[in-house]
Amino acid sequence: MSVVALMITGWDAGPWERRLQSIDSGLDIRTWPDIGNAADIDYALVWKPDGKALASLANLKVIFSLGAGVDHILGADNIPDIPIVRIVDPNLTARMSEYVVLHCLARLRRYAVYREQQARKEWIEQPDPCAAEVRVGVMGYGVLGQDAARKLAVMGFDVAAWNRSEKNDGDIPVFSGEAGKAEFLARTDILVSLLPLTPDTHGVLNTALFEGLARDGVLGPPSLINAGRGKLQNEPDILDALDRGVLSEAVLDVFVEEPLPAESPFWTHPKVVLTPHNAAISDPRALVEYVYRQIARYETGEPLENVVDRTRGY
Amino acid sequence: MSVVALMITGWDAGPWERRLQSIDSGLDIRTWPDIGNAADIDYALVWKPDGKALASLANLKVIFSLGAGVDHILGADNIPDIPIVRIVDPNLTARMSEYVVLHCLARLRRYAVYREQQARKEWIEQPDPCAAEVRVGVMGYGVLGQDAARKLAVMGFDVAAWNRSEKNDGDIPVFSGEAGKAEFLARTDILVSLLPLTPDTHGVLNTALFEGLARDGVLGPPSLINAGRGKLQNEPDILDALDRGVLSEAVLDVFVEEPLPAESPFWTHPKVVLTPHNAAISDPRALVEYVYRQIARYETGEPLENVVDRTRGY
Repeated sequence: MSVVALMITGWDAGPWERRLQSIDSGLDIRTWPDIGNAADIDYALVWKPDGKALASLANLKVIFSLGAGVDHILGADNIPDIPIVRIVDPNLTARMSEYVVLHCLARLRRYAVYREQQARKEWIEQPDPCAAEVRVGVMGYGVLGQDAARKLAVMGFDVAAWNRSEKNDGDIPVFSGEAGKAEFLARTDILVSLLPLTPDTHGVLNTALFEGLARDGVLGPPSLINAGRGKLQNEPDILDALDRGVLSEAVLDVFVEEPLPAESPFWTHPKVVLTPHNAAISDPRALVEYVYRQIARYETGEPLENVVDRTRGY
Repeated sequence: MSVVALMITGWDAGPWERRLQSIDSGLDIRTWPDIGNAADIDYALVWKPDGKALASLANLKVIFSLGAGVDHILGADNIPDIPIVRIVDPNLTARMSEYVVLHCLARLRRYAVYREQQARKEWIEQPDPCAAEVRVGVMGYGVLGQDAARKLAVMGFDVAAWNRSEKNDGDIPVFSGEAGKAEFLARTDILVSLLPLTPDTHGVLNTALFEGLARDGVLGPPSLINAGRGKLQNEPDILDALDRGVLSEAVLDVFVEEPLPAESPFWTHPKVVLTPHNAAISDPRALVEYVYRQIARYETGEPLENVVDRTRGY
């Protein structure tokens, strides 16, 4: 019987253990640190793992990330040189797109303005443009970015994407590399960040980038939605851009430090809409089924899906 | 040269006159009441017309409605028995869907709750269901309802529709008639009203209907979005349903009396989100081009499109 170790830092592992046990998988599930003989462990399901602990599992075959991003693994030292499998969960993808489309539509249709008007009993129609007049730019064109871009396009937005490497897409223009970045930014009114966190993207949401965004948008200055990772953000730069009118709004689901400290100016900034890193929560049942399916593939000699490329960092 | 009379009540006709004149249509445009010889008028573009004034135009051939609904025409007396053409504007359709999808997503993703948490500096993840767990019911399955339903389905919602008469749709289950209404309501967590206003639908959004909605939704009690017509609403019943918890929220774009009077309890009700009848504004340029295209069809003997069926009322 294959043995799976659940290694979670920062969350309570109990609910995950119960979910794993609730499916008759034919696997032996053990929760770190009570894993018995370390040499028994075949697979690890991890969140922010201790690299030394992972390295101590002499017969470990595959590491599964309990999240779409893998920076929480690649950032640790001593990670063994075995396959790391990213979670690709259609449910997580759909939820991320719900969040992105919601906040693009809320900006387009001036949700906040109409709430304020209601509070003042004001019946005033704003000169609302339609989605086709608003250029949304999706940065990071992996599984999440592609789904969000497609749904934004269905809603009528003028959508383009940027990706580190070249990607073709029938309908959505995809800019790529450093060469394509300036042109992409210059046609972007709402910037949606779904980038992975890598050494290259650390702090990439900064003044230089914000100043490259479109200055001629029908909604006024451009706005930012970051539902990727907090460390993509240069947070003082975001505040400065909001205060100088370089950005008109920031919708932030992620932060350099989470939970966001009480003293952060983001909480009370009138141009910030924030959510507690819940843009896209994994559905635990779907995630558990995905991991079990990958283990079954591995054990029958089929290739694993969504294996991380460590040199790219995602 | 054909002559067009612009007959508008309740709005300033000036901007419409300028838009009509700005296109080289080969038409003679005249604004009521300065129309010269009444017998010259071939076509009328109307909003809330005076039936007697229309009846005085002896050679009138077609009436065009400056809005998607035609209750503002059919409700008047003495309307001549000639074709009435509804506006079908792809831009108006897209904007209505923006509104509907925005407010369904805002309910799903608890936009208001997270704004309140931010104001209290609370970092709390709510147990958010995903769109597939939420049943949206679109009442009124014409051009607007079909587009909204399709886009809601793309976003992952569990969508069904109800229509007065039977309509088949490949993907969306369409309930119809009085027979199908109870079943439709019983599976609806978010009710989207896009019904036309007719004698049959007057006041249809009432206690009996609200009490027929789903009681087992993952978001709690059901909610209402009315972006159809204000007179579909029994407004005391909506307030009562909100106060008794039969409805958890009402998003209202339209009202029995517009602008909404300052003394209306809707303004300050904590469970009401209201907008000033701007869910879907016609793009004036597109509308003018549509009318000119219909006139050209009529004059070359082609059938008019989107002619109103007076017995149905839309």
